[in-house]
Amino acid sequence: MPHFLDTREDGFEARFVELLGMKREDSPDVDAVVAGIIADIRARGDAALIELTAKFDRLELTPETLAFSAEEIEAEVAKVPAEERAALELAAERIRAYHERQMPHDARWIDASGAELGWRWGPVSAAGLYVPGGLASYPSSVLMNAIPAKVAGVERLVVACPTPGGAVNPLVLLAAQLSGVDMVYRVGGAQAIAALAYGTETITPVDKITGPGNAFVAAAKRRVFGRVGIDMIAGPSEILVIADGTGDPDWIALDLMSQAEHDESAQAILITTDEAFGKAVVAAVEKRLETLERRAIAGASWRDFGAVIVARDLMEAAELSNRVAPEHLELCVADPDWLSEAITHAGAIFLGAYTPEAIGDYIGGPNHVLPTARSARFSSGLSVMDFVKRTTLAKMTPGALKAIGPSAEVLAKSESLEAHGLSVRARLDALNDEGGQ
Amino acid sequence: MPHFLDTREDGFEARFVELLGMKREDSPDVDAVVAGIIADIRARGDAALIELTAKFDRLELTPETLAFSAEEIEAEVAKVPAEERAALELAAERIRAYHERQMPHDARWIDASGAELGWRWGPVSAAGLYVPGGLASYPSSVLMNAIPAKVAGVERLVVACPTPGGAVNPLVLLAAQLSGVDMVYRVGGAQAIAALAYGTETITPVDKITGPGNAFVAAAKRRVFGRVGIDMIAGPSEILVIADGTGDPDWIALDLMSQAEHDESAQAILITTDEAFGKAVVAAVEKRLETLERRAIAGASWRDFGAVIVARDLMEAAELSNRVAPEHLELCVADPDWLSEAITHAGAIFLGAYTPEAIGDYIGGPNHVLPTARSARFSSGLSVMDFVKRTTLAKMTPGALKAIGPSAEVLAKSESLEAHGLSVRARLDALNDEGGQ
Repeated sequence: MPHFLDTREDGFEARFVELLGMKREDSPDVDAVVAGIIADIRARGDAALIELTAKFDRLELTPETLAFSAEEIEAEVAKVPAEERAALELAAERIRAYHERQMPHDARWIDASGAELGWRWGPVSAAGLYVPGGLASYPSSVLMNAIPAKVAGVERLVVACPTPGGAVNPLVLLAAQLSGVDMVYRVGGAQAIAALAYGTETITPVDKITGPGNAFVAAAKRRVFGRVGIDMIAGPSEILVIADGTGDPDWIALDLMSQAEHDESAQAILITTDEAFGKAVVAAVEKRLETLERRAIAGASWRDFGAVIVARDLMEAAELSNRVAPEHLELCVADPDWLSEAITHAGAIFLGAYTPEAIGDYIGGPNHVLPTARSARFSSGLSVMDFVKRTTLAKMTPGALKAIGPSAEVLAKSESLEAHGLSVRARLDALNDEGGQ
Repeated sequence: MPHFLDTREDGFEARFVELLGMKREDSPDVDAVVAGIIADIRARGDAALIELTAKFDRLELTPETLAFSAEEIEAEVAKVPAEERAALELAAERIRAYHERQMPHDARWIDASGAELGWRWGPVSAAGLYVPGGLASYPSSVLMNAIPAKVAGVERLVVACPTPGGAVNPLVLLAAQLSGVDMVYRVGGAQAIAALAYGTETITPVDKITGPGNAFVAAAKRRVFGRVGIDMIAGPSEILVIADGTGDPDWIALDLMSQAEHDESAQAILITTDEAFGKAVVAAVEKRLETLERRAIAGASWRDFGAVIVARDLMEAAELSNRVAPEHLELCVADPDWLSEAITHAGAIFLGAYTPEAIGDYIGGPNHVLPTARSARFSSGLSVMDFVKRTTLAKMTPGALKAIGPSAEVLAKSESLEAHGLSVRARLDALNDEGGQ
């Protein structure tokens, strides 16, 4: 049974705060181990990378076999059934179309003082995408990370993906190929992150690293942050569904389970204005949990972190949802557009009964890399913006400098930064000697 | 004497790489101390904050005096001379006008499948701005951090600024007032960052923390990252000037010194195509260093980290500059617009001889919080974007779900995520039973 709350009951606020503050993940402290691995890669490059891969992935590599060859990739992707290839191609096309609209625009203008101002966006030169091996090796995540990078104009895009014992997921290689990835290295863990950030004899360093990973990968990303850019450090997944009771309880049950099946630490919350509907959803979940392949994982998540909250009305539901700031928010209500206006914090909103969150995971177009653990309060999902950066522009004419320079000089003096003031004054004096503009 | 390099000399590449890799800052390892301070604030709130302020800032506070009162602020800002107030007002106005153009746009469209897609931007609800006390207490930085937040629509904006021994900078309070800051707390260090992130009885927690600070503040920001958003961790400042020899060597000398005077760890680099001009700049710097108030700091920075590089031509100069990815880049050349097209990595570009970097520090309009330590390769200066976040939107019609749902189902199966596939299948079956759309 999940937690069952009602906003009208005594003690609701305390129970809701407890739910909000629930610690869902024990992050093992692997920082010391990771620091050692990074130092080793920096000191010994390829040799260390090959040793660590033999140790952790039981795979013997050489500098020549660190990356998949073009022939190996062709041979693997040829194994992908036509139906899966078509689905992946459609997903890639839709994700590309969505992200192409995200490209930010340059700007340049001349203001009243005559100063020319603006900015210019440009891509990161090289990016590395981490793809976990084993169970969590999701081809959809390759598309979601690689396509925004290519749309942004990243010139060199490489993937690091461990292949424990040599096991390869052909769909991951196909997803990389469809997204324009230049190179796939069969390395993983903290050693892969270190190699991407610092480079080895064989691997040229990148400027930005994105993609999910285990505790070692996350700790390594935190450590190399600053040397390179990183995306967020993702926590376990979450869904919050607001339902007014108009839909099919089984649909909602499946949507909740589609998060719960990811991970025992995932969290699925239903907020409904209809108590009977809430109970029907709980019953439907119980029924689905009898047969789901991943019922052990989904059941544990639902039991430990699942919650059903009965709210007085939809506005109250929206307010509670804003306090959760969920990664995924489904609005399964009669008028989802109206309700969405009241939502201030959410990674992604899925509007209406025909938009299960799984559509967003694969094929809708928006990115599925989204802020977890309440961080939608201050951060956004992955996008083209993660692979571009802005350079600001300023160009003074003599007239503009005469108009605003004296104020800069006053402020420099007030901050006791003499050379700042003199660099303006020297130019103003020269202009005045010339008799001005 | 600064480092003097020539791209035509043997061993240039090795010397340039050495210059790039120079470690300019010893960050003391204060992480354990900071962890203790954060735990103390979380456990004991105001009491701990007041004790730590007494200890580090020699200032006795009560919960009632943690924040400046409106009367105290009025009394302090009344001390600001009219000339300084006018300069600060002009700066605020220009910074606001520049940043107002940065507001990103919402988007919503319907694609060929009938799916409605888009995104929506919204402000962070509450932000905290750290302002250092003492020498580095810059009113200009208050404007540069606070104005983008207000332009973004941040509802609650607070400042934390230590006042060691009770010493207050009236200009900081005026800058806060001009930018629409709601509350100024007279606390600093890691304890202020912890109070902003976790809250105390008196201080309501914020969602995002920005602003510069010492090693303790930087370590605390790293630690609370995830609980709240943070801006970059800034390193010592840098300037790179590309000059073709057409300008006044003394102007360039002053521009280089305006970075060098910030900090002994600051770095000032000149790349010129005219060796004689490079030598003239070095001579002009020597002369200025005889009289500059901050000559001890500026001289140490110039001696240890300053560099003059003679390049074959301007394109080579641009390529070297891109490898440095400087925080500030001045193009003191006859045709700066042409040269700027070759620049791929820089925090801010100052075009032409009449745009000293100090203009950008105070009054140009663009933000002066910029990526340091080569991070312009992958990150941007502070902007309105740091105070907004994006929520993606997706809404399927029955027709859109029928068109793209089956592919989502195929991909879910390929990733062994059964409930994902079933959540789509249940809806498709219902639609098919109904005889379709």
